[in-house]
Amino acid sequence: MLSFESDYTTGAHPKILQSIAESNMEHLPGYGSDIYCHRAKEKIRAACGCPEAEVFFLAGGTQTNAVVIASMLRGYEGVIAARTGHVSVHEAGAIELTGHKVLELAAKDGKLEAAVLEAYLHAFYRDENHEHMVFPGMVYLSYPTEYGTLYTKKELEQIAGICHAYEIPLYLDGARLGYGLMSYQADLTLPELAGLCDVFYIGGTKVGALCGEAVVFTRSRMPAHFLTLAKQRGALLAKGWLFGIQFDTLFTDDLYFTISRQAIDRAEELKALFWEKGYRFYLESPTNQQFILLEKERMNALEKQVRFSFWESYDAGHTVVRFATSWSTSSADVAGLREIL
Amino acid sequence: MLSFESDYTTGAHPKILQSIAESNMEHLPGYGSDIYCHRAKEKIRAACGCPEAEVFFLAGGTQTNAVVIASMLRGYEGVIAARTGHVSVHEAGAIELTGHKVLELAAKDGKLEAAVLEAYLHAFYRDENHEHMVFPGMVYLSYPTEYGTLYTKKELEQIAGICHAYEIPLYLDGARLGYGLMSYQADLTLPELAGLCDVFYIGGTKVGALCGEAVVFTRSRMPAHFLTLAKQRGALLAKGWLFGIQFDTLFTDDLYFTISRQAIDRAEELKALFWEKGYRFYLESPTNQQFILLEKERMNALEKQVRFSFWESYDAGHTVVRFATSWSTSSADVAGLREIL
Amino acid sequence: MLSFESDYTTGAHPKILQSIAESNMEHLPGYGSDIYCHRAKEKIRAACGCPEAEVFFLAGGTQTNAVVIASMLRGYEGVIAARTGHVSVHEAGAIELTGHKVLELAAKDGKLEAAVLEAYLHAFYRDENHEHMVFPGMVYLSYPTEYGTLYTKKELEQIAGICHAYEIPLYLDGARLGYGLMSYQADLTLPELAGLCDVFYIGGTKVGALCGEAVVFTRSRMPAHFLTLAKQRGALLAKGWLFGIQFDTLFTDDLYFTISRQAIDRAEELKALFWEKGYRFYLESPTNQQFILLEKERMNALEKQVRFSFWESYDAGHTVVRFATSWSTSSADVAGLREIL
Amino acid sequence: MLSFESDYTTGAHPKILQSIAESNMEHLPGYGSDIYCHRAKEKIRAACGCPEAEVFFLAGGTQTNAVVIASMLRGYEGVIAARTGHVSVHEAGAIELTGHKVLELAAKDGKLEAAVLEAYLHAFYRDENHEHMVFPGMVYLSYPTEYGTLYTKKELEQIAGICHAYEIPLYLDGARLGYGLMSYQADLTLPELAGLCDVFYIGGTKVGALCGEAVVFTRSRMPAHFLTLAKQRGALLAKGWLFGIQFDTLFTDDLYFTISRQAIDRAEELKALFWEKGYRFYLESPTNQQFILLEKERMNALEKQVRFSFWESYDAGHTVVRFATSWSTSSADVAGLREIL
Repeated sequence: MLSFESDYTTGAHPKILQSIAESNMEHLPGYGSDIYCHRAKEKIRAACGCPEAEVFFLAGGTQTNAVVIASMLRGYEGVIAARTGHVSVHEAGAIELTGHKVLELAAKDGKLEAAVLEAYLHAFYRDENHEHMVFPGMVYLSYPTEYGTLYTKKELEQIAGICHAYEIPLYLDGARLGYGLMSYQADLTLPELAGLCDVFYIGGTKVGALCGEAVVFTRSRMPAHFLTLAKQRGALLAKGWLFGIQFDTLFTDDLYFTISRQAIDRAEELKALFWEKGYRFYLESPTNQQFILLEKERMNALEKQVRFSFWESYDAGHTVVRFATSWSTSSADVAGLREIL
Repeated sequence: MLSFESDYTTGAHPKILQSIAESNMEHLPGYGSDIYCHRAKEKIRAACGCPEAEVFFLAGGTQTNAVVIASMLRGYEGVIAARTGHVSVHEAGAIELTGHKVLELAAKDGKLEAAVLEAYLHAFYRDENHEHMVFPGMVYLSYPTEYGTLYTKKELEQIAGICHAYEIPLYLDGARLGYGLMSYQADLTLPELAGLCDVFYIGGTKVGALCGEAVVFTRSRMPAHFLTLAKQRGALLAKGWLFGIQFDTLFTDDLYFTISRQAIDRAEELKALFWEKGYRFYLESPTNQQFILLEKERMNALEKQVRFSFWESYDAGHTVVRFATSWSTSSADVAGLREIL
Repeated sequence: MLSFESDYTTGAHPKILQSIAESNMEHLPGYGSDIYCHRAKEKIRAACGCPEAEVFFLAGGTQTNAVVIASMLRGYEGVIAARTGHVSVHEAGAIELTGHKVLELAAKDGKLEAAVLEAYLHAFYRDENHEHMVFPGMVYLSYPTEYGTLYTKKELEQIAGICHAYEIPLYLDGARLGYGLMSYQADLTLPELAGLCDVFYIGGTKVGALCGEAVVFTRSRMPAHFLTLAKQRGALLAKGWLFGIQFDTLFTDDLYFTISRQAIDRAEELKALFWEKGYRFYLESPTNQQFILLEKERMNALEKQVRFSFWESYDAGHTVVRFATSWSTSSADVAGLREIL
Repeated sequence: MLSFESDYTTGAHPKILQSIAESNMEHLPGYGSDIYCHRAKEKIRAACGCPEAEVFFLAGGTQTNAVVIASMLRGYEGVIAARTGHVSVHEAGAIELTGHKVLELAAKDGKLEAAVLEAYLHAFYRDENHEHMVFPGMVYLSYPTEYGTLYTKKELEQIAGICHAYEIPLYLDGARLGYGLMSYQADLTLPELAGLCDVFYIGGTKVGALCGEAVVFTRSRMPAHFLTLAKQRGALLAKGWLFGIQFDTLFTDDLYFTISRQAIDRAEELKALFWEKGYRFYLESPTNQQFILLEKERMNALEKQVRFSFWESYDAGHTVVRFATSWSTSSADVAGLREIL
């Protein structure tokens, strides 16, 4: 059956599989100290325009968020996030398990607003009792957000400016970073984004890898003994080159961006198709996730012919569903959908 | 200077001091295994009408909330609380430090609403992805709330009913329990309240004790090895009788209720006084904390003559301030305030 | 250069790579709900002779130990382990990070002794102050141990009997399980081992997989919502079939045991070679890890021709080093070593 | 019945009770910001000869150890302690609950030996795999130890020197500090001890207070926002002056030292009495705790006439028991014991 269920339903890009196969019988040192990890880090630093950045590979998004956030917050601090942010809702309390509160702020279309953030920080430090409260110690953003939306360069600059003023790091969750940067509406390059964040991660799992995310500490401020901190949280892979090989491949000949752009092209075709057929959009998403409002009956009928995700109830009669493209979505898939709609 | 700053600015009720002095040179066994703790527990069980309840003494509110909540939640669970609840805001992240999320719901005048709670629980279990989210594992209420308001018996019954239906315990934070039960508007007795909760605590610190809160597990379901769990969190006092003696005294001849009622009488006098003088109330509080809206200039003037608490900014020109009475507030104090206003 | 450094220096068994490649473009549901995970679990249950066992896949050993142990211990409990056990020494405090103490007992050649365990448990419960101490809540064993040694069936039965008597679960770390079960000296089958443990894991990373360990709860007592608990600890992979495919392959046509036996055959050849050449053994290991005592100069010379692991200092002049074989070690490798020694 | 069970079986020194009573109706600000805390801190700084020290009051020993240690260790660090240390054995895993390992070293008569410590640290950093292990981040000592023994000034200097060389703080648990410093064998003054430690606490609970310990950060390096960190762990008392008043009294006119010396005088009388009567000592303790070897029958007979503590089994026929004196032990108590022995 046709599937637009999510961007992690197929394996790895064929070039990645090939690299894994080719290196399979080499004897490599463990825990990320191998040549592939080394090479991948070099290429990522170059792509980010941050020659001094420190890069670390982890397995998945929740793990990455927990390890990075816990390693950067001080004991009395929490992390600010949009109420709809992944760390707020869909990580089973992984951040709280590390002992830190997620300080949830109201969001708009998945985005944290600079004015809301500023007001929150201002009020916190004005409150005479703030020593009895959790200190804001970091700002967490998703790019794209959980609703497929994007911060503009200007919005990101404003938020980064506030973080700077309050001396708290800005952390950007790039689980779908490629699909954000390659959006037709993105007005940011990877080096620009890297310049605004203290730390962010380049998502692999949802952009062509089997698993793996690349954490980038842009200002050489990776927490001391980060390897040990990752190990403690069960996040250090013995055969660490599995990540190195994948990211080495993704950052060779712009593969990461090329396949991200293909997914965006497919998403735009999808969008045009839904418009053409008169479907209602829940919101305007410029990335690979499209949120459509379906009547119950229409949804039930469609479910028999194509896979998509239930997102949330809208009202008694309507449901928000998600259609996602990925690096592996083909034009034929979109053509197939056209026949169904 | 006159002080209505809070209900914990003076020491202990004189009868408590007397009991401490009288027992001072007795040799008593440690860690709460003494005769005073035993006696206090008996009296509390009787006052609650729960002969089988298990009672444990802890030092303060934040400690009690953390120890109780952490000991009752399973690893994948969080605690539901009003967004304005003490555990949500003013405990420096003590619950998150135990690894559990506070699932914050919108509140009205500090109160969690049954309909909001029911909707949340219903939506949680309907969500196909709920295994990626924090499970609701307990409901936390304050009685009185942080805004001095009270749940009616009916409201508490509704919430308890929902908890029962979803098989999660109801926990009530009674830091100011006496001031709630003795309110002119309270329609609940202690045994009725005990009958509706799985666990609650009777606040001592704010109601005449030097320190100490009495946790009551109403259905004999104190978590196994609770003493060890308390010890782990640094909450077990070597000279545990310090709590026993205080609660033994408070629950002898209804002292706890008598002094709570006095504070309520003083609060009602305060309320009448503010009305009479034309002050605006931020909300209608039936307990010992009164929230008044003051113009900036009026506030600055008053501050020189009487102590009260800054609560929160209201708008550019107004501030919410709190006047609190306690067991130690005298009619002379109120008369003194009359002269100032 | 020849490498006997460890059993995780090469990638995956070619059959595994082939399975990954073949399934690469299938659309599969996430988080381990796919057909490959399902099939792998069925085959593992069959291999263990535990039709009702519950199986869960995790990425690596430290992660597995932390997730399993934290999910099974109660708040007041710790896990008993040999002082040389992996959880005691080489996991960077991953267990303590979950809030639980590792109760370290003296070990012999890496093995916990039944008499020592029994004495410890007996003394604990006799101590009047044991409520101020960490309760023993689980026993952790490694099979093979960190020194390559094996428990006999009888020894395991004794330990399991003690656990049973004290009603604490027995957990066995099988990071190198295949190399233990296929040892010439092993007197245990997988079903027998499964019958004695409450939970154990079948190591994949060191036995032919790229990553992945299979946790087996033998008595259908997987902790409730284990998926959520794993997610919280960042241990849930989006593309969970990566584990499923690997274990499905390993447990097809006895591949897991066949390749383990090959490693043991090579290790025995290694052992014979070291004997023949007059090397001293640090201890008698019947599995794929051989511990040799080398003089400093001999070690420095050898290091230039073959890779092995530094293990620990023995005395001023001698060092313990480790030579390990794996599924990928060939007879040619051993022949190569013969030329060097 | 006569009681030598422990040094925390009676209440507070009468002067402390008097101070509490006298200040009872004063309106005081909460959370330790009152004049009594301020005054007590000044006096403690003076007594320690550390004008720049930062002082914080907490309720009991386990709480103090957990709050101090957790606030000072970095995520990848553990605390080194004697295997018989209080944090290792008798705090129910409170340190591990904060996520940190207690790195237990062999001890002699309760004391950590400088050579053992040095060897451990040396070996740790030489180990190539130390990034997979818990980093030693602090040294914990008890003075007196759990066996009543004392470090000499020279021993403490050696340990402090090692800590300094490895740049890890030295923390001293002074639950019974007075009984150590006032021992006839002590060759250390409080200022000397303060000069050697980075942080230590002056025990109140066991030396005349109802509750309370005074943490002293000797080099003005109290962790940032320590109040918030304490609050998070439930360790911040609303009526914080309860500690201030007690320590203000204890450090007025040398009361702390005077009453400690009385307890030591009584302990020496006890010691002489046991010698005279031919009892065997388990070890030579120069402080207020005396450890005696009793035959089972003798123990059973004595138990009916005087209270003491069971310590540990010695062999089949003998038991180690503890007789402790405190500030409240009188010469009449010792005379009473003489009649019994």
